[in-house]
Amino acid sequence: MESAERIISLRKDRPSERAVASVIEALAAQFGNRLATSLAVRRQHAHTSTWLENEPADAVVFAQSTADVQAVVTRCAEHRVPVVPFGTGTSLEGHLNAPFGGIAIDLADMNRVLEVHADDLDCVVEPGVTRKQLNEYLRDQGLFFPIDPGADASLGGMAATRASGTNAVRYGTMKDNVLALTAVLANGEIVHTARRAKKSSAGYDLTRLLIGSEGTLGIVTDLTLKLHGIPEAISSGVCPFPSVEAACNATMATIQFGIPIARIELLDELSVRACNQHSKLNLPEQPMLFVEFHGSDANVAEQSQRFGEIAQESGGGPFEWATRPEDRNRLWQARHDFYWAVFALRPGTQSFATDVCVPISRLAECVTETQRDIAASGLICPIVGHVGDGNFHCSPLIDMENPAEIKAAEGFMNRLVERALAMEGTCTGEHGVGQGKMKYLEAEYGPAALEAMRAIKRAFDPHNIMNPGKIVALG
Amino acid sequence: MESAERIISLRKDRPSERAVASVIEALAAQFGNRLATSLAVRRQHAHTSTWLENEPADAVVFAQSTADVQAVVTRCAEHRVPVVPFGTGTSLEGHLNAPFGGIAIDLADMNRVLEVHADDLDCVVEPGVTRKQLNEYLRDQGLFFPIDPGADASLGGMAATRASGTNAVRYGTMKDNVLALTAVLANGEIVHTARRAKKSSAGYDLTRLLIGSEGTLGIVTDLTLKLHGIPEAISSGVCPFPSVEAACNATMATIQFGIPIARIELLDELSVRACNQHSKLNLPEQPMLFVEFHGSDANVAEQSQRFGEIAQESGGGPFEWATRPEDRNRLWQARHDFYWAVFALRPGTQSFATDVCVPISRLAECVTETQRDIAASGLICPIVGHVGDGNFHCSPLIDMENPAEIKAAEGFMNRLVERALAMEGTCTGEHGVGQGKMKYLEAEYGPAALEAMRAIKRAFDPHNIMNPGKIVALG
Repeated sequence: MESAERIISLRKDRPSERAVASVIEALAAQFGNRLATSLAVRRQHAHTSTWLENEPADAVVFAQSTADVQAVVTRCAEHRVPVVPFGTGTSLEGHLNAPFGGIAIDLADMNRVLEVHADDLDCVVEPGVTRKQLNEYLRDQGLFFPIDPGADASLGGMAATRASGTNAVRYGTMKDNVLALTAVLANGEIVHTARRAKKSSAGYDLTRLLIGSEGTLGIVTDLTLKLHGIPEAISSGVCPFPSVEAACNATMATIQFGIPIARIELLDELSVRACNQHSKLNLPEQPMLFVEFHGSDANVAEQSQRFGEIAQESGGGPFEWATRPEDRNRLWQARHDFYWAVFALRPGTQSFATDVCVPISRLAECVTETQRDIAASGLICPIVGHVGDGNFHCSPLIDMENPAEIKAAEGFMNRLVERALAMEGTCTGEHGVGQGKMKYLEAEYGPAALEAMRAIKRAFDPHNIMNPGKIVALG
Repeated sequence: MESAERIISLRKDRPSERAVASVIEALAAQFGNRLATSLAVRRQHAHTSTWLENEPADAVVFAQSTADVQAVVTRCAEHRVPVVPFGTGTSLEGHLNAPFGGIAIDLADMNRVLEVHADDLDCVVEPGVTRKQLNEYLRDQGLFFPIDPGADASLGGMAATRASGTNAVRYGTMKDNVLALTAVLANGEIVHTARRAKKSSAGYDLTRLLIGSEGTLGIVTDLTLKLHGIPEAISSGVCPFPSVEAACNATMATIQFGIPIARIELLDELSVRACNQHSKLNLPEQPMLFVEFHGSDANVAEQSQRFGEIAQESGGGPFEWATRPEDRNRLWQARHDFYWAVFALRPGTQSFATDVCVPISRLAECVTETQRDIAASGLICPIVGHVGDGNFHCSPLIDMENPAEIKAAEGFMNRLVERALAMEGTCTGEHGVGQGKMKYLEAEYGPAALEAMRAIKRAFDPHNIMNPGKIVALG
């Protein structure tokens, strides 16, 4: 595989300074103080997480409507200036960088819940609505939206990266929980990808094509989302295991027995230590599964009992229940804050985002080999995982002043992806490609599928203005 | 809306006779007696269901491998001759017609189950494997594949039309149950759309793009499918209602209460009569829900009890259980044979395939208005529906010798689609577009989304050889 230096896009040229100046002038006239050009604002709107370099756009527009987004895209298209959409800035693979400059469109002010159809278990939201905001809005109606990446991300961004999180094992990913989208395409046209019916066989699935396209085909300006009733009963618990392998084996058995578990999250020893420190928990520092069950009272009791038996057979236990909602929330908040917790293990370092996902039958083997690799590489690298889906994250903590460490981490990351691909897995289960995973796509898909993706990109965006330099960068 | 005459494609020209002759000559040399040119065989491989006219290809090749499919497509591409894939011939919208001639590729001999990964709950099959064949193959391992359109369709065809059926309310459609595909594209390249991992955020979703593309973007040559454990307990039953509206109201309440019902099927009075006649059942001739619950013993009992309460509140009942597997199978076989049963209501007629799907909150209203329309139109037209998804089928039985009847049925069908679209529904919940529903796509999506679909078609198939004249026909 190629080195991290090759993540650069094939687009070699920025637009001319004159083109950028023309666009900024026109947008300034239209948007007034909703256009910003200060370096601080521009840097905030480029990539800010993990190890990738910050590559700011030339200006930021704060959009308030689909019409605003359309106006910016149309103006940029005229001058072939890039457009980079921005939600909350929590993506992990350089999705927000502007390697060729251009205009960042901040969608955070488009944060209205437009419609809730409780009877149909769906709602329509603007792209800047965050998952927590939506769930607070819905709570009184007994409804919730299940997809929960670690960050309180925007729903538009979550659709763009095909995000998932801890609940995906039961509720699926964004792919499964978006009914329809409105998007502005590179030609300035506004498309509605589907009706609100629960299923349809009417033509090509534009909804799923835009989900995971990371702003390279269109900019999402509203989303129709599937909702779920808040379960009658929820029970969470933690279960320690003698080894990560034993925890993975218990996970595999749980899935294979068809227990409809809502969450099943692995934390290795080091990750438990990080959560204890950061989130003031008192967990024993050994490999751990955090689990949750949703259903009726009777159903949840039945699921929990079965899981307890499986855990015991794998050498795990004792199982501890967090029965009070506040304890349960504390537990899951700690899991969601894990991204921040790890840095306390080695202050001043940065983390490489890894995100492989393998068929569940290969999970224990993949994690175990990875642990050996970590030990051999001398890296400090906690492991957590949405293991019910076969997805896990290793977070090597790297002193970015130390080239040898960077090299070691890159080597580790490449081997991890090779290992996952050899096991019929993927280089990214939920973070997306952005800039960081581009170099792995050909090994994952082969040249013909990658060329088919490029054909779609060319068809939708012939001048390569939509978030260029990401996924399948065009020359 | 336009009349049925306008379903013709924009492609005006057949390939030259010389081009077709060259292709047939070359394919005959390669495939020997696996190439057929008799009219009888060609007509069998074109559209044979419902009212659309049969438009045969110029020849049929019986493929046995991905390489065979690739050879045919490559040869046809060279001479710009159309290619029409064929599974079991059970599609309903003229998907198999060859309005511009060309080569039909019969995939029925590609009927091997290639791999079963019981631990991962998935399998890999060739496109000619049918759903019943697969489920017989899997039964000993305690696994099943849930998607069940009425016919014993091929899984390749089911993917191509984004099929669903009675179980979709719980298990989703083909969109949700295919992990990956192998397909031959118009350029002769073979693409693998995804790895076997349960989820991925790696680039554009080629899997979902091909699902529902009806052979217009590529020909599926293998599928990786999600499997499910056969539930510990299954219970089915029938519940009569005083009106179709009452049955729809009970369905809405069931979905809104979050009961994970596995099947909930509406039959109106006329449909019950048809099933009684055709399948020798003894059901009371009144509107009816056929339901099924999957889960553990305790869970199924709990679900059934809750459903019974809801049915009673809507004025339905008494609820009768089919506890013995043979009674249960007889019930569902009758439901699946409904397509054939209706013709007994009026022998010698043909049926127009209708397939609208609306948000569940609008279901009772949509069905009730449709019943009024049927009465006013003087049509004989039973209604059945996968009502848990808001999807229902009306089958007007038409004497095709009587132009006034045909006109009345066309008018009914157009009003039905307009009604569904006005309620945020779709013109086709599960049958696909084919030739029959093309005229409704612009009203459903608007011109910008339709143009985006055309851009995809052009990008994948610039010479318009892949099942031309379907979905978004190109000029």
